[in-house]
Amino acid sequence: MTLADRVQYPAFHSRIMSADEAAALIPAGAHVGMSGFTGAGYPKAVPAALAARIERLNREGHGFRIGLWTGASTAPELDGALARVDGIDMRLPYQSDPTCRAQINAGQMQYVDLHLSHVAQYVWFGFLGALDVAVVEVAGVLPDGRLIPASSVGNNKTWLDQAQKIILEVNTWHSPGLEGMHDIYYGTDRPPHRVPIPMTEPHQRIGEPYLRCDPDKVVAVVPTHQPDRNTTYAAPDANSQQIAAHLLDFLQHEVRRGRLPPGLLPLQSGVGNIANAVLAGLDGGPFKGLAAYTEVLQDGMLALLRSGTLATASATAVSLSPEAMEDFNARIDFYRERIVLRPQEISNHPELIRRMGLIAMNGMIEADIYGNVNSTHIMGSAIMNGIGGSGDFARNAYLSVFMTPSLAKGGAISCIVPMVSHVDHTEHDVQILVTEQGLADLRGLSPTQRAAQIIERCAHPDFRPALHDYLARARRGAVGQHTPHLLDEALSWHQRFVRTGSMRGV
Amino acid sequence: MTLADRVQYPAFHSRIMSADEAAALIPAGAHVGMSGFTGAGYPKAVPAALAARIERLNREGHGFRIGLWTGASTAPELDGALARVDGIDMRLPYQSDPTCRAQINAGQMQYVDLHLSHVAQYVWFGFLGALDVAVVEVAGVLPDGRLIPASSVGNNKTWLDQAQKIILEVNTWHSPGLEGMHDIYYGTDRPPHRVPIPMTEPHQRIGEPYLRCDPDKVVAVVPTHQPDRNTTYAAPDANSQQIAAHLLDFLQHEVRRGRLPPGLLPLQSGVGNIANAVLAGLDGGPFKGLAAYTEVLQDGMLALLRSGTLATASATAVSLSPEAMEDFNARIDFYRERIVLRPQEISNHPELIRRMGLIAMNGMIEADIYGNVNSTHIMGSAIMNGIGGSGDFARNAYLSVFMTPSLAKGGAISCIVPMVSHVDHTEHDVQILVTEQGLADLRGLSPTQRAAQIIERCAHPDFRPALHDYLARARRGAVGQHTPHLLDEALSWHQRFVRTGSMRGV
Repeated sequence: MTLADRVQYPAFHSRIMSADEAAALIPAGAHVGMSGFTGAGYPKAVPAALAARIERLNREGHGFRIGLWTGASTAPELDGALARVDGIDMRLPYQSDPTCRAQINAGQMQYVDLHLSHVAQYVWFGFLGALDVAVVEVAGVLPDGRLIPASSVGNNKTWLDQAQKIILEVNTWHSPGLEGMHDIYYGTDRPPHRVPIPMTEPHQRIGEPYLRCDPDKVVAVVPTHQPDRNTTYAAPDANSQQIAAHLLDFLQHEVRRGRLPPGLLPLQSGVGNIANAVLAGLDGGPFKGLAAYTEVLQDGMLALLRSGTLATASATAVSLSPEAMEDFNARIDFYRERIVLRPQEISNHPELIRRMGLIAMNGMIEADIYGNVNSTHIMGSAIMNGIGGSGDFARNAYLSVFMTPSLAKGGAISCIVPMVSHVDHTEHDVQILVTEQGLADLRGLSPTQRAAQIIERCAHPDFRPALHDYLARARRGAVGQHTPHLLDEALSWHQRFVRTGSMRGV
Repeated sequence: MTLADRVQYPAFHSRIMSADEAAALIPAGAHVGMSGFTGAGYPKAVPAALAARIERLNREGHGFRIGLWTGASTAPELDGALARVDGIDMRLPYQSDPTCRAQINAGQMQYVDLHLSHVAQYVWFGFLGALDVAVVEVAGVLPDGRLIPASSVGNNKTWLDQAQKIILEVNTWHSPGLEGMHDIYYGTDRPPHRVPIPMTEPHQRIGEPYLRCDPDKVVAVVPTHQPDRNTTYAAPDANSQQIAAHLLDFLQHEVRRGRLPPGLLPLQSGVGNIANAVLAGLDGGPFKGLAAYTEVLQDGMLALLRSGTLATASATAVSLSPEAMEDFNARIDFYRERIVLRPQEISNHPELIRRMGLIAMNGMIEADIYGNVNSTHIMGSAIMNGIGGSGDFARNAYLSVFMTPSLAKGGAISCIVPMVSHVDHTEHDVQILVTEQGLADLRGLSPTQRAAQIIERCAHPDFRPALHDYLARARRGAVGQHTPHLLDEALSWHQRFVRTGSMRGV
């Protein structure tokens, strides 16, 4: 398939140019909205060209930096390339890049960590300033100028709508078979003009398969042929498998108790090895014909679709290993019937999450004995990645589950602590905690009742005595017994880790 | 108006009995769902009779306690009476009673502090166990057995639906003119059977004016004639007026910048003196014909309806001073055209809050320099009241505003601290902070940018140098510069207060 097959809108042919030429159209200080969600569908060429331009100009003393807005995380050739030349002044709404992370934690890059469902509307509301340029990867352009989205949708609809100028990357690496897999809903609006989102089932299509785009705003069309980041995930380790087993036991228990229907409810699953282990566990279990309504489809979700454990899956991105991507392209007609890719304002919309009653399963960094969860910060100060969509899902889900191994850093860190060093999900939003040790069901429990469950079921046995001891002393010494804390000790486990490299030695 | 006029369903006449007789129908260990929201519409007679029964039985060694579920806070003759006899084992989802608070903080009563929009659905989902008895105050019973709600709706629809037996209190103190003011929506369901809630405007009626009730479940009808709690609020003090002035300036600024329509967006307002000052300030301002979509209508809202500043108001309760209640009853036809009272699952529903784009204005106990808000805990351990609906509103609003005077306890406490001692609203959910000192607009800012704004604009000048000093030293000494904290000092202001009675002396 040639570039001409992919760019069928005639007026764009004269705007086909190199990445360097396109990058030259991005002014210093611009707010740039780039496509990309979990290493899928991000622009592959313009960011590198922009980085080279920034490096050259900054060497000449021009102080060239941009505000970089995306869907979520991208890849080294976008976040990494721009961060390495000190080209990002402000980053939002999510990142997971080592160079970005280092710069944020060195105080050299500003980072605004947002709920992923909030981003598009904040731009529409004018809360983040004007969007100057959109750089959006697509799989093709129709004869009428509409765009075939690539492997992620993210905030692309909003970037295309709101940007003053648009740079398109047309990546012929993407399968032409992606066409028809997307569902772009154009019924959103600003208050007071909003109406109900007409979706009641995860697989429902409520929009159109293409992105609209004002062709007059398109200043450059850059051809590329490069794969997505396509990370391979490790096979589930023993801890992940145990976490998955506890969770599957629990889901079956809930079905028996009549608190979940036999076909469960739509599944939301975070990314990473634990999530993949849970999915693998589901595939061996009694459930069939389930639905996923989530952010990202990884290898595990595809396996579940093939086996029939999942009947359908809705997401905003497909982020696969190279092997899974081969299978995805080979059977794309099969997957297109079962997968819907949507804007992240829809995949993460509180209205839909609450209405459809999701089972939200997300990873975390640490939880405290009262059920507060830290998803973002290391030792209270350093960012890891960001909150992503976990808040959208946890607050509004039917069931809100958070998972982690009980230990980190080779056993130096207990992931169950007296008080978390940063709170992303409050005690009011966390129903189920799972570690390889067990599962704590916190529904309907007071803080001290939760503490007993969490310590006994989720904490590693090495740290249980110290947690029990903390709780017992707090129950004697705290100024109140609702959530008893000893303020001079509450963060001492983190302090000890910072000082000695280990939380042990209590 | 006689009792017979109020209880028009013939089969109920034989079930009219005294509060003592009705209280005898509540078994030990029962989960009891009582009406009541912010001191409005709570049962007035059965709780006291139940308290007397519990006291008697416990004196005989029976260990009689109940689980008490309500809409929100009630009054001394409900929460207070039952707590004083040690009759409450577990309380949810909100309380503000001094006796309850003391027992919770002494570790003698379990308290489950829930988002108010979550309560009804948790009961439907079976997450809190079975509801044994409902005790619901109403204004009257129709000939067909349907109920005219009283001054609050709260969770009454759910209590009546879910309870195995029902005790009605028919309170002839409520104006018969309440009939027609309520809108009870019966379109909610459990997933996967949920559909969009068909509301796009705050004043819209989507249900019916009466509560349905299976008459066979009604075991007792208790006549009462007693007023609601009806607290009088103090006239706004200077601090409240300054907070209101900052907020009104900001709203006008947002209208000028095109980020708010000239008629604003629906207002949600917490309860208390600051909220009343904001409303009073609005009444002197340039806005007319506004809408409120909130939990509770207090005196201030009525004044705004009378002046035309507010065109309509939606809530789940009307909680007035005795003087305002007189006016309310005198002009009830005027108010009935402008006020809609709904179940709290609708007044606080994320779907509707997000769709209609509310301006959410809530009080807080403290905020930290990074914009995390504590709404519930004193010094990290002791409960004050509860999160109430603030999380429902803040996470989903168009604008999320939190307000407090910069000082508390006669200046011994700074309400802006290095790190809050408990988090109810995370940095991701807080856009605007206001104290009498000024207003910090946190939209689109990174944590350290937020800190500069919050310290300079919101902290009291007495504490600004110490906050600047903390931030400066954290920027040198923290393990990461995204949210720089010194873990051994982060809670030291609270520790100092516990030790010395003051945060001063840094």
